[in-house]
Order: sequence, then C-alpha cells, then structure tokens
Amino acid sequence: MPNITKLSKNIITEINKLYLAKYRKEKGTFIALGSHLYKEAKLAGVLVTAYATIDTVDATYISEEDMKKIAKTDTPCQVLSICKAVDKHELSNKVLLLDAIQDPGNMGTLMRTAKAFGFDTIVLGNGCVDIYNDKVVRASQGAIFKLNYIHMPIKEFISQNNNYQIYGTSVNNGVTPNLVQFVPPLGLILGNEGNGINPEILALTKQNLYIPMTNTESLNVSVAGAILMYLMQ
Amino acid sequence: MPNITKLSKNIITEINKLYLAKYRKEKGTFIALGSHLYKEAKLAGVLVTAYATIDTVDATYISEEDMKKIAKTDTPCQVLSICKAVDKHELSNKVLLLDAIQDPGNMGTLMRTAKAFGFDTIVLGNGCVDIYNDKVVRASQGAIFKLNYIHMPIKEFISQNNNYQIYGTSVNNGVTPNLVQFVPPLGLILGNEGNGINPEILALTKQNLYIPMTNTESLNVSVAGAILMYLMQ
Repeated sequence: MPNITKLSKNIITEINKLYLAKYRKEKGTFIALGSHLYKEAKLAGVLVTAYATIDTVDATYISEEDMKKIAKTDTPCQVLSICKAVDKHELSNKVLLLDAIQDPGNMGTLMRTAKAFGFDTIVLGNGCVDIYNDKVVRASQGAIFKLNYIHMPIKEFISQNNNYQIYGTSVNNGVTPNLVQFVPPLGLILGNEGNGINPEILALTKQNLYIPMTNTESLNVSVAGAILMYLMQ
Repeated sequence: MPNITKLSKNIITEINKLYLAKYRKEKGTFIALGSHLYKEAKLAGVLVTAYATIDTVDATYISEEDMKKIAKTDTPCQVLSICKAVDKHELSNKVLLLDAIQDPGNMGTLMRTAKAFGFDTIVLGNGCVDIYNDKVVRASQGAIFKLNYIHMPIKEFISQNNNYQIYGTSVNNGVTPNLVQFVPPLGLILGNEGNGINPEILALTKQNLYIPMTNTESLNVSVAGAILMYLMQ
C-alpha cells in the first residue's frame, strides 16, 4: 500500500468550500463521491484530482479520519474526486426542460433517466438546484458527465426553438400520453416539486400530458418524468 | 396563539428514540415530519400526538428551538407527528414485492407510486429498510398510511400464492414489457439497488422484464419500478 498523506488544514478547507455553489462556480470544479463516480470521471476526462482510503490509481492515499473531514456522506466514502465542470451545450433532438426542480435527489435521478432514454440535453430554467451539488452528482450516477446543459429561462428556449414540439405536464388539464404520437425534435417540461410548472410556461406548450392513475395520488416528479421519457423514447 | 410548552428532556429523549427501528418496533409508533403528513395521519386515524411551531389542532405548541431537538431535517419542520403503526395485511390483486430495497428514499417513492397505480399491497422481503424510517415516511408522501404490508420472504410468498403471475426485472435476460399482456392477479418484484434481485427468487418468476433504453445506462430502482407499475396498471 502507498504511504498515507496527511491533509493540511488548508486543503481540507478548500475541498469543503466545494460543497457551496458559489465556490464551485468560482473554481469551475465540483465533488463526486464514491468509486463508481471516480471511474466515470476518469472515463469522461474531467478528473482533476482524487483522494482515497483504498489503493487507487491517480489518487492521494489518505486516512479514514481525513476522509471523514472532506466527504459529506452518511455511509463511509472510499474515494472523493474533484472534477472539472465542462458544460457541453449541444442540442439533442429530445430535450428535458426543468422548471425550478429543487430537490438534489430528483435532479440527479432525472439526469440519469434522461441519459438512459436519449434526452441528452437538459435545459435548466429558473430556480433549479445547482447540478454540481454533491447530492445531484451522486444521484445522477455518472450521467452528469455525459449530458449537455443549457442554462436559460424555459420561455426563452421555447421561443428560440419553435421547431421543437414542447410538451408540458399538468395534473388538471392534460391528455394521456398513449393518445399522442411523439416525433422528435421534442421537449418535455417538468415543474417544481410543490407548485408544478409555472402557468406562463404551461401556456406556451403544444400539449399538456397527464399520467392516468388508479388512485387519486400524486407522483414524485422524477417518477412522472421517467414514465413520460420512457413513452417518448 | 396558544402558550408555548417547554419539552422536558425526557420527552425529547423518548421522541428521538423513534429514529431507531428497534424503539419504533417496541413502541409501535413512528415519526412523520411536516404538515402534509400530519393531515394524512389524522385522516388515516393513526395520529397519536403532534408537536408544532404553528397553530395546529390537536398539537402541542412548542418553540422552534425545541422542534430542532426532535425533528431531524435539513429544512425547518413546523409539525412533527407521532403515528401509530397499523399494519394492514390485505392482499390486493396487484402486489409489489421488494427484495432488499435499502435506500429510504427509494422505498418511500416506490410506496407512493405503488399506491398511485393500484399496487395496494407491498411484500417486504429480506433485507428491506424499515418502512417506518422517517425518510421512508417522508418520501411516501402519505401512501405509508394507505397500503397493506406483508413481511415475508419473497420465495415464500410466491409458493403460497401460485395464482399470481409473478414478474421479475432483469438487466440481462428479459422481455420488453410492451410485448406482455398483464392480467391480475399479478406481482412485480424489484431488487436491491446494487445487486438486483436474488437469482434464487428470479428463477421462480413467470417472466422477467427488461426496460429498453436508448443508451446503455441503468435506471434507479424507483424509476424502473414506476415505469413497470404504470404499464401494468
């Protein structure tokens, strides 16, 4: 095993700053926890540096005690990667448009599902959680490194891309998705966990979709999004 | 506004014990955080007692300081409910069978989706997270109060209910769900986040399903479960 490197206070402070969006933006880097994401970051060519408590190529070998000071997780973490934020801005023919998605777990899960179903570009509208939040990164399971991101108000995206069929989601006033033939280029809008899609945005869609349910319940936004992206594939 | 009641150390300790499965089982009660779950608990008739920092019927009015000592959340909580665990064991004609689902968020989201799509009974196989974990309860958004639970190894459930068509999920070896006509009584098995379904269980299914994806990615288990429950509705 390699020798253990003791982390300086300064480095510990610098790494911990990356849990705050402000510093991530300033530095252009973000934290990814766990060995799976370490491998994905390497594969994507965005690994800046890594710290590990197990023997890991290109990583500084540190103690579990030091790892606890830099890895914010409930479960023990073996590898912490610092990754370069490389925003790719290409526009795929299926686009996921997010209006104020605030829960990091939902954001990350939506990114993972989007990648699986070919929604390779995500438009991040107003009020969305920072995609480089460590909880988003973890829930994305590596999809974070493979998607294109466009930071733009959704209304603006719609007006600039009028060749895209834009579908909204609505609990009250929508058609069931099995009645619709989906032909790309298309976009699917998902809205805030508590309030749904901003009505001003909803008014600009081609059609609004509703997922029929046996019982009158609501669905988690990452679940509703997954069902619709599966059907639009 | 009512007068503020100061919580005794003893009460604070007793409430905090309910974050541990062992004590929940002993007491037969569990914690639900937030006003939405407070309303759902009342509606379900399982509210034992509640503590609130806002004026709330049937709740003890407490300070925000005391609330912080009993409500384990990242975001401020206004109402904490203590609920009675009433296990209902009825068997619905669509059943969700869970094999070692360990993430509380996944468990709660699966419960919420199950209720929405008429999977009113959940079979909790070996290795599942406790359904009365506060994070499960929160993610379930009230579905926790409305479902039936059967704690039983999945292999046993299958052998005792051979009139049910049981479907597994497999990444390697499955049919796409749109080729299958689903007729209840039926059951859907979902497996552990890391390892999938135990092969011994998978060998007992009628058919194993695979969700086709544009890109070779994996899906979060609560996402995969949601797509399949939607299609089996």
